[in-house]
Amino acid sequence: MRNLNQDTITQAVIARFAGTPDPRLKEIMTSLVQHLHAFAREVKLTESEWLAGIDFLTATGQKCDDKRQEFILLSDTLGLSMLTVAMNNNKPAGCTEATVFGPFFLEGAPRFNLGDDVAGGARGEPCLVHGTIKALDGTPVPNALINVWQADAEGNYDVQYAHLAKPQARGILNADENGNFHFKTILAEAYPIPTDGPVGAMLKATSNHPWRPAHLHFMIDAPGYEKLITHVFREEDPYLESDVVFGVRSSLVADWKKNPDGTYDLDYDFVLNPVKQTAKV
Amino acid sequence: MRNLNQDTITQAVIARFAGTPDPRLKEIMTSLVQHLHAFAREVKLTESEWLAGIDFLTATGQKCDDKRQEFILLSDTLGLSMLTVAMNNNKPAGCTEATVFGPFFLEGAPRFNLGDDVAGGARGEPCLVHGTIKALDGTPVPNALINVWQADAEGNYDVQYAHLAKPQARGILNADENGNFHFKTILAEAYPIPTDGPVGAMLKATSNHPWRPAHLHFMIDAPGYEKLITHVFREEDPYLESDVVFGVRSSLVADWKKNPDGTYDLDYDFVLNPVKQTAKV
Ligand SMILES: [Cu+2]
Ligand SMILES: [Fe+3]
Ligand SMILES: [Fe+3]
Repeated sequence: MRNLNQDTITQAVIARFAGTPDPRLKEIMTSLVQHLHAFAREVKLTESEWLAGIDFLTATGQKCDDKRQEFILLSDTLGLSMLTVAMNNNKPAGCTEATVFGPFFLEGAPRFNLGDDVAGGARGEPCLVHGTIKALDGTPVPNALINVWQADAEGNYDVQYAHLAKPQARGILNADENGNFHFKTILAEAYPIPTDGPVGAMLKATSNHPWRPAHLHFMIDAPGYEKLITHVFREEDPYLESDVVFGVRSSLVADWKKNPDGTYDLDYDFVLNPVKQTAKV
Repeated sequence: MRNLNQDTITQAVIARFAGTPDPRLKEIMTSLVQHLHAFAREVKLTESEWLAGIDFLTATGQKCDDKRQEFILLSDTLGLSMLTVAMNNNKPAGCTEATVFGPFFLEGAPRFNLGDDVAGGARGEPCLVHGTIKALDGTPVPNALINVWQADAEGNYDVQYAHLAKPQARGILNADENGNFHFKTILAEAYPIPTDGPVGAMLKATSNHPWRPAHLHFMIDAPGYEKLITHVFREEDPYLESDVVFGVRSSLVADWKKNPDGTYDLDYDFVLNPVKQTAKV
């Protein structure tokens, strides 16, 4: 395997991965090499562009820490995240649609009881969120585990502040036995994704804005149902048509009503997709 | 731009990059998105595989520091580096061929005079390296700047040792006015690329060895000629047919002669490619 040129190298690399014991890994490596090489060949990548790519990926990795995930941001802004979500969440009509996970979820958020305020001191207009978690036939799904997280009125998640003593504007709670939930939080507002890293530089160089339309993140788990990872968006947000991560689905846009006292109210129901039955042994 | 699905998202992302001011960046982003999405679609990437990919890239970036470049290693082992070298170095017959740059070059290596020992204390069999730097017509190229770097008898570059006081087995020197150079160093030996990072894990998971055949790196600069980045390999090395980074070219394989006193001798000439003349204004 010598003297490989631009026409012969791709097959040589694929042959190198032919002995991969795990068939799925072999399939992924084979396809990855083919498309990566096809990209480089199509644009006739120069050596200085190759080095710029190496530097970009290195900087992206080095921007990551336990609170920052720049590679998820990169995947989100290249549409890879939403493509992956779309391919893996072909739910039946009537189910709540999924959207991107995003880089701001945190394991081990604080636990709350129904009715509690999950804001934890985060700045924003007060908002009551309530609804029901249901099956496709409309019957309630009892006691689902609900994770919620969101940005504050400044457009920041708690993890974006350097010196917060505890989590803010995120929490875990359970719906009741009738599938109902309600909690207090702050109003979701549009926010820019972090632009102080390589992804921000890429958006700037491509003349793209970094904004996401206002949304509240939900992750809902209940036995017998597929885990649902989604958002609820706000009607009339100016960024609904240009979400920097391509995540908006019309069925997830809701009317967050303003009350006479200035507080807000979001009423939104979730419909879970049952896990496919597998044959009993 | 809402409700994107696996069939519509790619065009939507490409449209997002349509306003990129720099036409070359626009071309690269467009092609990258197409091939990245095509890969994900072809393998029907699952959400957990997507996350494994994010984690792999993050770990690769975090393994990099001022002495370790894990993304170059990844590019090398996926054949992307050699593909890029091949596309950009279509030199006329008779010119010395280029090969991969590798992750172990260091700016600012020590300067030496002709005849000096560049080993600087690195362990290995003594070896004299000499030759002439020429143009295609055989006339000598005077005073070319030569960078050389190599691994020691343990298979390590100096940068792989934590506590070395100064660079070893690398240096910068100039050929003389007749294009001749000679310097002392140590014998090049086969070595494994570093396997303690994500790339090592990838090689292991795909049942690939991490070895490179023995080689001495050269980078040669002379006014009026293309910069040449290459290696000289050793005949009969067991890894010549399975170089982990796909870099071997038969024309770069030489006979490193063993002298009666046990030292080695490498005689190798380099032929530089003239820079294309551009029309005078
Ligand atoms: Cu492709
Ligand atoms: Fe968000
Ligand atoms: Fe090397």
